[in-house]
Amino acid sequence: MEINELAKHAGEWLRGEGPESDIIISSRIRLARNLADFPFTNRASTEQMAEISELLHDRIIRLDVNGGLSYFDLSTLSPLDLEFLVERHLISKEHAESEGARGVAINEQETVSVMVNEEDHLRIQVLKSGFQLGETWEIIDEVDDAIDRELNYAFSAELGYLTACPTNVGTGMRASVMLHLPALLFTRQIDKVITAVGKMNLVVRGLYGEGTQYAGSLYQISNQVTLGKSEEEILDNIVSTVPQIVRYERRAREMLLSQNRAKLEDRVYRSLGMLKSARTISSSETITLLSHLRLGINLGLIEMAIGQVNQLFIRALPAHLQKMEGTELGPEERDAARATFIRKSVGDIL
Amino acid sequence: MEINELAKHAGEWLRGEGPESDIIISSRIRLARNLADFPFTNRASTEQMAEISELLHDRIIRLDVNGGLSYFDLSTLSPLDLEFLVERHLISKEHAESEGARGVAINEQETVSVMVNEEDHLRIQVLKSGFQLGETWEIIDEVDDAIDRELNYAFSAELGYLTACPTNVGTGMRASVMLHLPALLFTRQIDKVITAVGKMNLVVRGLYGEGTQYAGSLYQISNQVTLGKSEEEILDNIVSTVPQIVRYERRAREMLLSQNRAKLEDRVYRSLGMLKSARTISSSETITLLSHLRLGINLGLIEMAIGQVNQLFIRALPAHLQKMEGTELGPEERDAARATFIRKSVGDIL
Repeated sequence: MEINELAKHAGEWLRGEGPESDIIISSRIRLARNLADFPFTNRASTEQMAEISELLHDRIIRLDVNGGLSYFDLSTLSPLDLEFLVERHLISKEHAESEGARGVAINEQETVSVMVNEEDHLRIQVLKSGFQLGETWEIIDEVDDAIDRELNYAFSAELGYLTACPTNVGTGMRASVMLHLPALLFTRQIDKVITAVGKMNLVVRGLYGEGTQYAGSLYQISNQVTLGKSEEEILDNIVSTVPQIVRYERRAREMLLSQNRAKLEDRVYRSLGMLKSARTISSSETITLLSHLRLGINLGLIEMAIGQVNQLFIRALPAHLQKMEGTELGPEERDAARATFIRKSVGDIL
Repeated sequence: MEINELAKHAGEWLRGEGPESDIIISSRIRLARNLADFPFTNRASTEQMAEISELLHDRIIRLDVNGGLSYFDLSTLSPLDLEFLVERHLISKEHAESEGARGVAINEQETVSVMVNEEDHLRIQVLKSGFQLGETWEIIDEVDDAIDRELNYAFSAELGYLTACPTNVGTGMRASVMLHLPALLFTRQIDKVITAVGKMNLVVRGLYGEGTQYAGSLYQISNQVTLGKSEEEILDNIVSTVPQIVRYERRAREMLLSQNRAKLEDRVYRSLGMLKSARTISSSETITLLSHLRLGINLGLIEMAIGQVNQLFIRALPAHLQKMEGTELGPEERDAARATFIRKSVGDIL
């Protein structure tokens, strides 16, 4: 599989097909793992990094998980391709920006990605559409076991899995769901929800991890603690908290419809009008407008497949646009190309 | 003719048919006249006001000018109908808001209106589409002569026509043109133009006279001085100044097209997108968006008759909307009705 092939499709997690997919975009688990026989990446020499990378590459491409994995050597990829993989949630920003021997293995559905020589030797990720943490866990547990059979993980009977950063020690697990909560934002209840979630030892982030704004009313909720709890306990905490947030969002949507329908419709249709007419548009404005459009679809105001709008969030990002255009573009050219792309994509609505 | 009849058509001045009508919406002259045998309206008793009103009504409806005049007794009209006549530029705001015996005579094309018992006993107005001050002058001069033959004007050989307010003494004439200058606004040259116009003893006002903002980049330019100059001199000053402003605006439009085309197109199409999609919209936002739309039509970006957009500026105003709906509406209902009306009016563009 080539990077250019990836650009022609969308990952499974954007299809909007899983449970609660009107509100929950995706479920994700990642496991941090390290090899016992090598120093952590922040202590490893260039030669050791290359050795780790080669070893893991060999073992990972042999794995028979989810239809097989394709391996990309990140040190040979262009900055554009690296950014593209970040936008697609297949590698982390840090992984793209670091240097030296490193790679990622991805299956065709893009549900599984295994980063090699990120902060840890291995970062295994499974990403699924909708609220599917249970299934996501089953898949990642299998991948983890399969790799474990081939390699010797750094593991302490007392602490659990050992990781480069102490915040990941123990299970090495971070589980998260990405929620679309526009009604809680419109009704100014979102800050209350974020505070409440914090008290459950969960963390709220934006579309692109720590420090990113909550663009497009997209909120990632994940566990803070990896140590001292089992994987099941961590998952249970999220699995029991998220449905409450979903209920709040649904209630806020009903409230908007019953008390503020005119203003809500105005906002949805104006956003569609902008998307259909702009000749130049930034990523950030696009995400905001798509968020309103997505809400409009869920409320039955606009007819469009939810998967289509999910994909637009990602396909309108800079690297995706440039991959689609087949060339590098400056910021102004990107904003113009984005407007043309979006116009084509939503042009036949209404 | 009934008020409700007026609401079904648009005045000639909105048809966008006269010379330079891409930039000059309309040309207007008004003459202030008073009867020698009565005190000015600010000194007249209720009985005298009634007497003046009756006398002028009798004489005016007899006049055979521009297809005959219909007379409306303002003291019998509803606040909505009065506001409607103001929006249509057939009576002044002050005339609508004052009390007592007063009226207005209007011809079918709405090119001629004669206000009775405004600040002066008579305010004769002629309003034409495009840059037609010459023709406008010929018409108003005829109307003025015709009334003069029937009545005894307050006139001093030394001062000229006597008026209630000294600023109108002399010719009693105010001549004005309404210009649409969006490109001078976008290129930030409009303030310079306004300052230069001021030095020519001309005044710049907004769409609805003194104190109104320059909504929709619409600028009324008129003479300041009525005394010590002949009617021809006053007209010559405007007639020689306005074409320069028109040239500046055309140059600014060319500059925008050559240097900033992408941004300009974006602004025009987004404005159209908003007009086509909003579910609730204020007068003020409508006027701003229509201004961008009008520029887009003139630049060939959008296909729509210029007269149609001229009319929308007025038909989207509160009283016009309510007349069209056939009922009084609260502010929120108006904004919703306006959005529906505008959407229907521009829905088939692009």
